[in-house]
Order: sequence, then structure tokens, then C-alpha cells
Amino acid sequence: MLYEINEKALKLESEGKKIVRLNLGDPDMATPPEIVEAAYASMKQGKTKYSSSYGEKNLREKIAEIHAVPADNVVITPGSKWGVFSTMFLLLKGGGNVIIPTPYWTAYDLIAKTLGAQTKLLKTELEDEWKINLDKLEKLIDKDTKMIILNNPNNPTSKVMDEKTLDGIVEIANRKKITILSDEVYGTIAFTKTKSILEYGSRNHILSNGFSKTFSMTGWRIGYIIANKQLIDNLTKLNQITVNNVPVFIQEAALKGLELRKKIASKIEEEYLIRAKMACRILSKAGLEFTAPDAPFYVFPRQGGLDSEKFTLNLLDQGVAVAPGTSFGDYREHFRISLTAPRDQIETALTKICEALQ
Amino acid sequence: MLYEINEKALKLESEGKKIVRLNLGDPDMATPPEIVEAAYASMKQGKTKYSSSYGEKNLREKIAEIHAVPADNVVITPGSKWGVFSTMFLLLKGGGNVIIPTPYWTAYDLIAKTLGAQTKLLKTELEDEWKINLDKLEKLIDKDTKMIILNNPNNPTSKVMDEKTLDGIVEIANRKKITILSDEVYGTIAFTKTKSILEYGSRNHILSNGFSKTFSMTGWRIGYIIANKQLIDNLTKLNQITVNNVPVFIQEAALKGLELRKKIASKIEEEYLIRAKMACRILSKAGLEFTAPDAPFYVFPRQGGLDSEKFTLNLLDQGVAVAPGTSFGDYREHFRISLTAPRDQIETALTKICEALQ
Repeated sequence: MLYEINEKALKLESEGKKIVRLNLGDPDMATPPEIVEAAYASMKQGKTKYSSSYGEKNLREKIAEIHAVPADNVVITPGSKWGVFSTMFLLLKGGGNVIIPTPYWTAYDLIAKTLGAQTKLLKTELEDEWKINLDKLEKLIDKDTKMIILNNPNNPTSKVMDEKTLDGIVEIANRKKITILSDEVYGTIAFTKTKSILEYGSRNHILSNGFSKTFSMTGWRIGYIIANKQLIDNLTKLNQITVNNVPVFIQEAALKGLELRKKIASKIEEEYLIRAKMACRILSKAGLEFTAPDAPFYVFPRQGGLDSEKFTLNLLDQGVAVAPGTSFGDYREHFRISLTAPRDQIETALTKICEALQ
Repeated sequence: MLYEINEKALKLESEGKKIVRLNLGDPDMATPPEIVEAAYASMKQGKTKYSSSYGEKNLREKIAEIHAVPADNVVITPGSKWGVFSTMFLLLKGGGNVIIPTPYWTAYDLIAKTLGAQTKLLKTELEDEWKINLDKLEKLIDKDTKMIILNNPNNPTSKVMDEKTLDGIVEIANRKKITILSDEVYGTIAFTKTKSILEYGSRNHILSNGFSKTFSMTGWRIGYIIANKQLIDNLTKLNQITVNNVPVFIQEAALKGLELRKKIASKIEEEYLIRAKMACRILSKAGLEFTAPDAPFYVFPRQGGLDSEKFTLNLLDQGVAVAPGTSFGDYREHFRISLTAPRDQIETALTKICEALQ
């Protein structure tokens, strides 16, 4: 229902209605002007032609340097969502199943279903602070299991996985020869250190990352995959017959972002930490249950007995868009608030939410 | 081998070698400055967020107006290649086969194979002026045939389909209830009138089009599909879990192109007509066989006994990139020259080509 809510919100806005949009992970902050200027300069230099489906050399090298991997292990994608889709397309081609811990980002499940793959959901609970149970994970694996998808930090809970659990998951995956796809788009701007899948040194596992969240570049559609060279080559071949390439001027804009990343990312992280604390304060006062975010942008509170689908649709008519828990798995009593609006709007919206829940 | 040649050409260039690139349909002309400025203005207005997977309302409406269809029948895609891929993905999902006349654009065949669909190739010949034989087409259709892909004007021959043949194909497709996907990216700038699939009024057939060729916007990645509303909705759902949206600033740049289309397209058409005439003159003198182009950008000459794969690889070492005929089907004696370089470079390259063929 995530996408339906968004299209409905867009429609209401186009009809002139004012909506506080806390339903998507789309930062309210503008893309930093240095990035916009880099794109413009690049366009004016005529960098508007077809280009390599691997991505631009200088951008791949910069990403490789940051992650301490060879540039051959990097491919640029039009958004991290395309990175996830194309990886799943290739890995699940011959059939099989994929294990997805819940709550999950809606797209994983929709992609798997669209590809005709079976999904095995591994439920985590607020009571356990959203920890993955390693025994349950191991039992879920069968001979047809092709991959495990991790989202660390997690959307919608904003929980960073504790290192011990992640160590355990990697150990199981290595022993069973199963590929982990680790989506770490919120990692760079997390409030606590997030251990990356790349730190385990194995080239069987895959990192998905993007520029949307770190650089407020959601609408630019640029991300990347780091994986073994064979998969990178195959992803590139798939790019060649689908999206071809990310516009070079967008790649150069992203490169400018990476060059300024310390300054940009710390400013973004700081602002979201303030918002997260404010949200925790207001939601606690109203008696909602949740874990405090370890990362931008989300809080995923619960109210016993809530029908979050009805609730979010009614709330939309009151001018606040949030996402129902059912969009993230079997979580009807939860809903997801995205703290991606100016603080005063968030405050007003949170107050409306709490009133509506009374 | 088309993509391999291109990656090799890019590599040689990055090593400092000078290559005349006549291997891709990538215009040498810069994107018109009005289009670049429209993108910049849009970025500066903050149009850098996630947006509708259908595409922007104003762009869809403008496209709808030009093609005289409702805006609900239009979806914006990141390049017309994505339009073709995503349409084939949906139509060939349950299996089946697709009929592709040859010579074809490489991507159709690669996409079908990647999707696990069977392809039925319908060979056309230089001797018949590349005309599709309607009897052969009808015999090729079986109960598993899901679609016919037309490329009109054709890449690599630059032939515009004569109306009588097209009428015949549509009649057969309608009678047998088979969907036609008509890729008309070269239509707007053709030297002779190209009858569009939309002129037949049926909403079972699909138009694929893009901005790359008409507006020298290849690297911007924007195109569109016109089809019945149900397919448009399904393509949008696929966009939501893959590419999400074309950057809004790119959509606004494309809209600017459409507003100025009469001026821009006629200038481009004029230049390519001059180049085509020059190419015909030089190639005729060297005794090569070909049909004169009806549209930009290609000539597809033949020399009896030629091994075009060897020929194009050797030619690359001499600083000229063209594409071997085998990239377009069973055409080993042919090669494709893309007239997408300044006239003097084309002239030099054509002379080198003719010498190499002696």
C-alpha cells in the first residue's frame, strides 16, 4: 500500500491540498548546491552522451577507494533500487527462494514476487529489539535458498544490527554457501557505527548503496553495487539491455558529493538526530511503543489493536501521510513515520497523529 | 559484439587513442543549450526528489497532445530501451515467443533471451529492399506467439516501412490477436513520412519512443511508451520496484525539447540528410551494395565474402569504430556505419573503410 498512498498523496497535492509528507524516505533538504553546480558544469561540457554501462571510471575509483575494494568490483546503477532489482534478477533467475527478515523495505518482497521467486520471511519483533534469531534463520534455509537480504540500518525500524548478530548471520551464510545482499543505504549517516558486509572480506556477498539518503539526491537516481567481478560484469550486461547508463552529469554530481562527503553527511546526520529525539519525546508521551532510531529517517511505533491501513488512509484526509505497518510485513499495529520534513511540520504532524490515535 | 566493440573503443580512447566513433547511434551534436538550461533551472528549483513512476503530468500531457491520445496512455521511461525491456518483461512473463524481423536492433534479441523467451527471426534482404514478406510472417505465428516487434524506421538499415506492408502486418496481428510493439525512435527525424502504429487506432498495440535521437539527448536516458491504460499501469508498477522515476529535471528538459521540437528536429534532419547523401556517394563509388537511408543515422552496406567481425575489429585498430553485421542478425557480409560524427571525420573514416575493403 506504500506506493498507493504516495500516488494518492501526490494527487491530493496536485488538487491543491496541503499534505505533510512523512510517508517516504525522501529528505526535505535540498540537494547541496555544490552537487547541482557540478551537474550543470558537466552538462555544459557536453557530457550528455551514451557512456559505459559499468559507470564512469573516476566515480567507480572514488567509491572503490572509500570502501577499500578494487574499482573492478563496482558498478554504478540508476538508484540503489535498480541495484537490488538487477542483483535479484540475476541471482534468482533459475528459481529458488530468498530469505527476507521483516519488517522489510516493501520493494524486496515485491521484486521477489515479480521475479517469480519464493520469499521466506523471518519475522523480528519490537520486544526483541528487532534482533534476528539465528536458529530460526538457519532452520529457514533449504536447498533452494539462493540469498538472504539484509537492510542495515533497517527500514522501517532504523535499527542498526548489533555486530554479534551480523557475525552469526555471515557465519551461517558462509557455511551454507548462500549469498548475502546487504542494503546499507542508511549506513553512512547512521547515529551509531554500522558494520558493513564488506568488512567480512568475502567476495560472495554483495553491498548495495546509494547517494539518495546521504546527499539528499533521491530524485537523481544513482546508486552502486559492490560485488565479485563476475557479478559486476553480469550486472553491466543487464544494464546494457535495460537502463544503459546513469547520465554522466549525474555521476559527476555524485562524485562531487563524495568529495565533500564528510561535511555534507555530518550535517545531515546531525539534523536527523535532533528530529529523532523530538519524535521519541512526543511519541513516548502519547504512550506509543517503539525502539529509538539508530539512524535516519524512520520511527516504527506500535499501538495495540490499531488497524494501520485504515488509520493511514484517514490520516491522509487530515493532511498527514505516513505508511501503514502492513507495507513492511505482518505489522498491522505499527506504522512508519519518516522524519523528512522541517522540524515544525514534523511536530505539528506528530501531534495530529497522537490525537488521531486517542 | 556491439557492446564489446563499444567498451573496447572507450578503453582505447581512455588510453589516449583517437577513434572516429561510427559504431553507435549517438549523435555528435550537443544537446541544444535551451534543454540544458531547462534542466539547470529545474534542479535549482529543487526538483530533485522522488516523483511519480508514471512520469510528470505536464510532460505526459504534452506527449499525449502530440500523439493525439489521452495522457493516461503515456508512461515516461528512463530511455526507450527501458520502455522496450519493461514491455517485453510484462508481455513475455508467462513464456511464449516473439517475432522479430531482421536485421534488428541487438537489444530486442538480447532482451528476449535474457527473459527466457523464444525468438522467431523473420529475415529480410537487401535484394527485397528489406521488405517484410507477409506470408512468411503469418506462417511464423503460432499459438505461443505473444508479440511482434517492429522498428520503423529500422536500425540498422534506416529503411522506413512502406504503408502497404505495415497495413498488412497490422491486419495479420489484429486477426491473430497479437500485440505489436513499434519502436519509432527515428520516426520524428525521418527523411520521408513514417506511418505510426498509433494511426491504426488500436489500443492493443504499443508505441515506444524517446528523446535521444530527436534531441541529441542519448545520455540523458528518457523515453516513453504509449499503450492501453492497463499496460501503462503495469509498467508503472514495474517502474516502482526498479527505476522508480526519471529525474524531474530531466523530464522538464525533455518538455523544453518538445516545445521547441519543430526548430530542433528539422535542423537535425537536415544535417543527417546531407551526411547520408555524402555516405551514399562515397560507398557507391567503392562498389558497396546498400539501400539509401530514409532516416538517420545508419547505412548498412554489404560486400560479398566479407567477414564483418574480423573487419570491424581490425578497423578499430586503425581508429574507426563501426558495428559488424552479425550484431543485427545473420548478416556477416554487412556492417553498420553510424553517421554520427562531424562531416569531415565521416568523410575520412569512410575513405579508410573503403580502402580497408579493397
